[in-house]
Amino acid sequence: MVSFTILVDCPDEKGLIYRITRILYHRQLNIVENSEFVDSNTNRFFMRTEVEGIADENILQEELEAALPSKSYIRIITAGRKKLVVLATRENHCLGDLMVRNHFKEWNAEICAVISNHHTLEDFVKRLGIPFHALLSEGKSRDDHEQVMAALIDGYNPDYVVLAKYMRILTPAFVERYQNRIINIHHSFLPAFVGAQPYRQAYDRGVKIIGATAHFVNNNLDEGPIICQSVVPVDHSQNASDMAKAGKDIEKMVLSQALKLILEDRVMLSGNKTIIF
Amino acid sequence: MVSFTILVDCPDEKGLIYRITRILYHRQLNIVENSEFVDSNTNRFFMRTEVEGIADENILQEELEAALPSKSYIRIITAGRKKLVVLATRENHCLGDLMVRNHFKEWNAEICAVISNHHTLEDFVKRLGIPFHALLSEGKSRDDHEQVMAALIDGYNPDYVVLAKYMRILTPAFVERYQNRIINIHHSFLPAFVGAQPYRQAYDRGVKIIGATAHFVNNNLDEGPIICQSVVPVDHSQNASDMAKAGKDIEKMVLSQALKLILEDRVMLSGNKTIIF
Amino acid sequence: MVSFTILVDCPDEKGLIYRITRILYHRQLNIVENSEFVDSNTNRFFMRTEVEGIADENILQEELEAALPSKSYIRIITAGRKKLVVLATRENHCLGDLMVRNHFKEWNAEICAVISNHHTLEDFVKRLGIPFHALLSEGKSRDDHEQVMAALIDGYNPDYVVLAKYMRILTPAFVERYQNRIINIHHSFLPAFVGAQPYRQAYDRGVKIIGATAHFVNNNLDEGPIICQSVVPVDHSQNASDMAKAGKDIEKMVLSQALKLILEDRVMLSGNKTIIF
Amino acid sequence: MVSFTILVDCPDEKGLIYRITRILYHRQLNIVENSEFVDSNTNRFFMRTEVEGIADENILQEELEAALPSKSYIRIITAGRKKLVVLATRENHCLGDLMVRNHFKEWNAEICAVISNHHTLEDFVKRLGIPFHALLSEGKSRDDHEQVMAALIDGYNPDYVVLAKYMRILTPAFVERYQNRIINIHHSFLPAFVGAQPYRQAYDRGVKIIGATAHFVNNNLDEGPIICQSVVPVDHSQNASDMAKAGKDIEKMVLSQALKLILEDRVMLSGNKTIIF
Repeated sequence: MVSFTILVDCPDEKGLIYRITRILYHRQLNIVENSEFVDSNTNRFFMRTEVEGIADENILQEELEAALPSKSYIRIITAGRKKLVVLATRENHCLGDLMVRNHFKEWNAEICAVISNHHTLEDFVKRLGIPFHALLSEGKSRDDHEQVMAALIDGYNPDYVVLAKYMRILTPAFVERYQNRIINIHHSFLPAFVGAQPYRQAYDRGVKIIGATAHFVNNNLDEGPIICQSVVPVDHSQNASDMAKAGKDIEKMVLSQALKLILEDRVMLSGNKTIIF
Repeated sequence: MVSFTILVDCPDEKGLIYRITRILYHRQLNIVENSEFVDSNTNRFFMRTEVEGIADENILQEELEAALPSKSYIRIITAGRKKLVVLATRENHCLGDLMVRNHFKEWNAEICAVISNHHTLEDFVKRLGIPFHALLSEGKSRDDHEQVMAALIDGYNPDYVVLAKYMRILTPAFVERYQNRIINIHHSFLPAFVGAQPYRQAYDRGVKIIGATAHFVNNNLDEGPIICQSVVPVDHSQNASDMAKAGKDIEKMVLSQALKLILEDRVMLSGNKTIIF
Repeated sequence: MVSFTILVDCPDEKGLIYRITRILYHRQLNIVENSEFVDSNTNRFFMRTEVEGIADENILQEELEAALPSKSYIRIITAGRKKLVVLATRENHCLGDLMVRNHFKEWNAEICAVISNHHTLEDFVKRLGIPFHALLSEGKSRDDHEQVMAALIDGYNPDYVVLAKYMRILTPAFVERYQNRIINIHHSFLPAFVGAQPYRQAYDRGVKIIGATAHFVNNNLDEGPIICQSVVPVDHSQNASDMAKAGKDIEKMVLSQALKLILEDRVMLSGNKTIIF
Repeated sequence: MVSFTILVDCPDEKGLIYRITRILYHRQLNIVENSEFVDSNTNRFFMRTEVEGIADENILQEELEAALPSKSYIRIITAGRKKLVVLATRENHCLGDLMVRNHFKEWNAEICAVISNHHTLEDFVKRLGIPFHALLSEGKSRDDHEQVMAALIDGYNPDYVVLAKYMRILTPAFVERYQNRIINIHHSFLPAFVGAQPYRQAYDRGVKIIGATAHFVNNNLDEGPIICQSVVPVDHSQNASDMAKAGKDIEKMVLSQALKLILEDRVMLSGNKTIIF
């Protein structure tokens, strides 16, 4: 018995669920979990189906394609350990949380390597037996630095690149190379406080709640599709530095929540938004 | 064009979604929203489908029954204003919130009447043009009191009876009369602090969070299926009375949230639990 | 036995608590609740003290002034019912919540009148026995409209003017007239989505949490000191209109929370921020 | 310049703040942060003061004792790294979080050792350079097992013993040995679901929110003073095992929050309740 996840993204029309489930029924596949959504703005239909059973993926893919409208996007994903490369800088909270989950195999995924533009986190990562690459950026152009990094990343052939507080801006070329495969944690409740020093900005504005946002990275800084957000209350007694500390805990939780959803293939994209099944 | 909501609760087996959506497709009904769940404990399948189109309800019901296993429970609900009778005692916060929503027709429902065992809320209810019945309990046996109340309620033929801080315990006979149709708001995070004076209990225990629970009423006090819960942080500076005040705001929000779900036919029952679609 | 609240805002230096509490002790006043804060950015000290006892306010004020540095700001507030004038437009949720609390005297305050630029809420307000003034803006210049409104407001001599979803922008002249006395509820998690149609903006951005912000009004739109904020999770299935509905419940709760704090004299201002004791 | 924290717990009477701050003022100590609370149930006054300056602790203690009523409890705590011994069983999430914080010196504390009744976590702990003691319980009486453990613990002379999902019940003798110094994380929203398998209990009850509770351990199982609680929403689609997974994230956050408060000397005890300053 095998498990598949089927993701469908197609133009909406009547009978889609019927057509898809008919194929699954005739292939003797048992639906374990099913979710649908119609984006009435774009008139597209989204469906995520977890099935159990035995089927030839290629035939299933062909049958679904034949049954669905043109411009349908169909993915059949077999359960398998996904590969991650993590980029970090000096802060340890997000990386630490990912490393512990990885060490104890909490997820159906593995961290292949950690790459950093500083040495700060090297000892910790190596102690837990994960390759660590220090790619210092000094004396290198942004493009050169990224090219070395991309070559390193590609050597691991990861499914996703996770920015666990990686504090350098990525070029459009780099972002495009890993389209829809880079996940970032931004230390604010986007779209409030885009850019640098969000906790300083939050303190200066006197907000009573701060937040963190996990999102896909696209070419516009902090503007990619949002996956998860969370918040924590703050008060007048906390200065920018206290807020930054308070924010760390939700940053790491939000990044982990987003990754869990992604690793379970529960996140679909509709324009600049995510659909979370 | 009409809207229906179809609720299915049946033994789980392969092909259920296929069989149901085939019927809807052939009847030219468009699925607007669809949700499914399999309770693996009881091996039952639950589905809620919102459709648009024109169909003879009786024929549709027959077709679905023919297509689904025996011991299936199928309900086809046409959109219509539901009727509520509200029972209250002296506290105004839950009733006040319901009355405002009713006055401005926020929900596809109407409060037909308010019944109370005190006069406290009478003036407020009457000002907003809703019939108010004061059924004082003094000098009456519990059974007599409830019989008068049931007769009054039945005169309005309500879909649901809402206990908006009705502070008298109901007899099994009364509860059975309105099986799965009585919604209560309990002023604690059930199952903590069952019974009387939950805020006093919460204060004595020194909890850091208090809660409220909206649930269906069954014959065991505070043990019916939970619909919604919410919480609010408290601290050492709040005594039992402060906690009660803090709790009022979440009580009224939780009761309203639960009612909204019920009025949209999003709540199904699986044993002593609710499934919320 | 009387209760006072003493608010002190003064340059920070050693011994302030000692000097203040010495005076209270010698006046035989019992401290019921006490809170302090030093804003290290501005080097100012803030203190809120609730005392019980009998004292001549003028003498107490003089003694405190003599004991504290120059440029100290001292307020002694005797418990008394505060007066509110509420401005609203067409939405009922915030106004409804305030009106219910007012009707049942939940706060040590009274709503003297409701002023609106539409007739929509008139019947509801009048049913609950509160004066309603419809000041339609059509055919009037903004200044003329505001002048009539200010005259009306001043006739009630309110402590605070509450904007319960008042959807017209106020002129600087009007805002200055009621400096630090106008409280607004903004239907977003400020500073995200400043300006018009915040729920539309939130939907377009694909956020996973929406919020509401109660703040003092100053001359820069949506930029006054924040008093309270709260949030509610949303998901892809909710469009802008669904988000607006979901937001209403937190808007009304946040506005009420902010007002409760203000009416208990728990809100002090430090530049563009609030200190909440 | 040194920092002290002064904790006072004494019978309430007029002038306490004045008497305490007078001493601090005359000793030229600058108050950085100050909090007070009167428990009107027990008529005791609690105060936590952070001061900067130079003072002889013994003299300060004597002066405060002389100024305050008899039966006062005064503690002067100089900033210093606190020592922790962590007890764990097989679950890694709470321990992992503590170990990462410890590794990067997030707190003014150090984990001296981890003791476990299983080998599961040994490799992880040793990789991060912390002593790990496997004290298997098989073939040992509870008393014998605890005596070996107590001897081990005492060898490290810790300020606190942290139960990071230590799944064995402790005897009253052990609990008394470390009175008010054992912190536990319970995997439910106490007092709901006391005892074993709280997530199974929560699932069976059909709750919509689950929680975690950090508390001091006393002799009655799960009934010690509560320090922190937190919750996370769940729904019908989550079975007991899913709830347990969802609960892990809040368990680790709540335990860390509680420890942070304790390590900053912000937690005082009033009977079976905590006061958190």
